[in-house]
Amino acid sequence: MVEQTGDVLAANLAFYLAFEERDLDAMADLWDHGDDVACTHPGWPTLHGWGKVGASWAALLSNGERLQFIVADELVRVCGSVAWVACTENLLADDGFGGTVAALNVFEQQDDRWVIVAHHGSPVARKMG
Amino acid sequence: MVEQTGDVLAANLAFYLAFEERDLDAMADLWDHGDDVACTHPGWPTLHGWGKVGASWAALLSNGERLQFIVADELVRVCGSVAWVACTENLLADDGFGGTVAALNVFEQQDDRWVIVAHHGSPVARKMG
Repeated sequence: MVEQTGDVLAANLAFYLAFEERDLDAMADLWDHGDDVACTHPGWPTLHGWGKVGASWAALLSNGERLQFIVADELVRVCGSVAWVACTENLLADDGFGGTVAALNVFEQQDDRWVIVAHHGSPVARKMG
Repeated sequence: MVEQTGDVLAANLAFYLAFEERDLDAMADLWDHGDDVACTHPGWPTLHGWGKVGASWAALLSNGERLQFIVADELVRVCGSVAWVACTENLLADDGFGGTVAALNVFEQQDDRWVIVAHHGSPVARKMG
């Protein structure tokens, strides 16, 4: 279980690395390509299916400013061949602090790899005490 | 699998019914009470563990206005003893339309029941074409 948790956290960090490096091939490789994957970018409605999800990543990774992700507060749970990570994305943009995003990422184990089947990111409007 | 999917969707709707009816006992009964549950209310940072999550529901269900949930766009996936539902919450408040929330809800099967282990809701700022 400990090793499983480490593998899931490594897959989670690979996701943010692909985002940072704007590497669409790496991002596509990290995702399941089925019709029932789900992706919610901050402020967006949920996209269903790799067709729309992949297109959204193509758009996001080719446009906009470069972001650096400081990932914190990871909570990981592995249950059989499914795992999920709740974490905080602290964003650094070229011009300074870029805000905080709360994320929930769901992974499935396929052929000894953990692939993403759902990602949900949302803007954190206020810090709790 | 078909029956499993139906059971998961029923648990998902029970979650929104408990929210609508401000029924804290029903809400508490629907959740796993472990330290590694995660809950992200729209605009909030993620809360970890039933202690904080349960306290947030106690606050939300005892304050604020009554909301009605029109749940749509359910995408459900069952993988062993874990399932998740991505859905759209269309909110109706006493004074009219209350906005749209994108949600991702993760369930674990425990003793033949599907209990919530993670909920992430986020405000939808814009509708896609």
